[in-house]
Amino acid sequence: MSDTKDPVEFWFDFSSPYSYIASERIDELVAKHGRKVKWRPIMLGAAFKASGLPFLVNVPLKGEYSKRDFDRSARYLGVPYTFPPRFPVTTLAAARGYYWLHGQDCNKAREFAHAVFRAYWVNGRDIGELPVVLEIAGTLGIDGDAYIAAIATPEIKERLKRETDAAIAKGMFGAPYFMVDGEPFWGADRLPQIEKWLATGGF
Amino acid sequence: MSDTKDPVEFWFDFSSPYSYIASERIDELVAKHGRKVKWRPIMLGAAFKASGLPFLVNVPLKGEYSKRDFDRSARYLGVPYTFPPRFPVTTLAAARGYYWLHGQDCNKAREFAHAVFRAYWVNGRDIGELPVVLEIAGTLGIDGDAYIAAIATPEIKERLKRETDAAIAKGMFGAPYFMVDGEPFWGADRLPQIEKWLATGGF
Repeated sequence: MSDTKDPVEFWFDFSSPYSYIASERIDELVAKHGRKVKWRPIMLGAAFKASGLPFLVNVPLKGEYSKRDFDRSARYLGVPYTFPPRFPVTTLAAARGYYWLHGQDCNKAREFAHAVFRAYWVNGRDIGELPVVLEIAGTLGIDGDAYIAAIATPEIKERLKRETDAAIAKGMFGAPYFMVDGEPFWGADRLPQIEKWLATGGF
Repeated sequence: MSDTKDPVEFWFDFSSPYSYIASERIDELVAKHGRKVKWRPIMLGAAFKASGLPFLVNVPLKGEYSKRDFDRSARYLGVPYTFPPRFPVTTLAAARGYYWLHGQDCNKAREFAHAVFRAYWVNGRDIGELPVVLEIAGTLGIDGDAYIAAIATPEIKERLKRETDAAIAKGMFGAPYFMVDGEPFWGADRLPQIEKWLATGGF
């Protein structure tokens, strides 16, 4: 039965704390219902531009609250988390590399995505810097020169833009953003609703 | 033991859908842990001004999503809900009346608050109109003339302003906003975290 259903779509930015938190739980949650997840890194800055929203942590009052909530939400779900020394960072190099890897081996791409998220959100590595991304890729046996060449191609650059535009066309204005059988969900805090949606076929 | 602990603070605006949803669940949740809730209506417009945030439903993409999420979140928690014909409305008359009633009988004030929320979020009554508020008050045996006189006094007007300012001073930027033993929580979707916080004394 599960083969006939579309995967759950998961749009994220490597620089988004709630995206990281969700990334540590979504596969297992969805697998319990015999379904798969399609991971799609996007450029959240483009989505903020489309919605006209300000950058969360810069909003008076809400920004201070949000940093406390990132941390508490991670603890609530038992996800290791440390606010990184540099935030936010531009995640172009990592997101482009994801699509290159995905074209070759989707399991390797998933492994790479987890490694990038954890390097930033657990170990505080600056994933906005290409050498750091190459080092992460290297630990997974990915060749650095091939990586550099791949993310410079028009095809890969265009792919990331296209995926971001497609997500915005599906209503994405923040991350993580999910689509489950046509129903959109925004935020790591919607995981329980996603679970109920999968369990009941919609409520 | 519970007598020695401060009540959970619950700030809300009668015009806020997530406030309404939380109002239907917070007392029971908190009572399970032997604690009480202090209900505090505030003027959310003043908080938006303090944070510089736009009005949620007018934000491109996010606004459309949010209407769907109000409805789904209510269904998820089993709370009756219908998006009202007029939204938002100014809830000055209801909020001021709450503080007047609270000065006399805090149980009656709670009963009134539930009635106002349900008149708007279940039955679509325009609680921004004074005659509607008086009708709701009347069903609870509250005298209309006394109500009108009370909400026109400087003391009651000042009280609502003071409560709103006090909430903003505690970091409130949206509603519902809760304070549990010094820890702030924002949103009906944080009820599970509040529950865990009460159960464990913080996590």
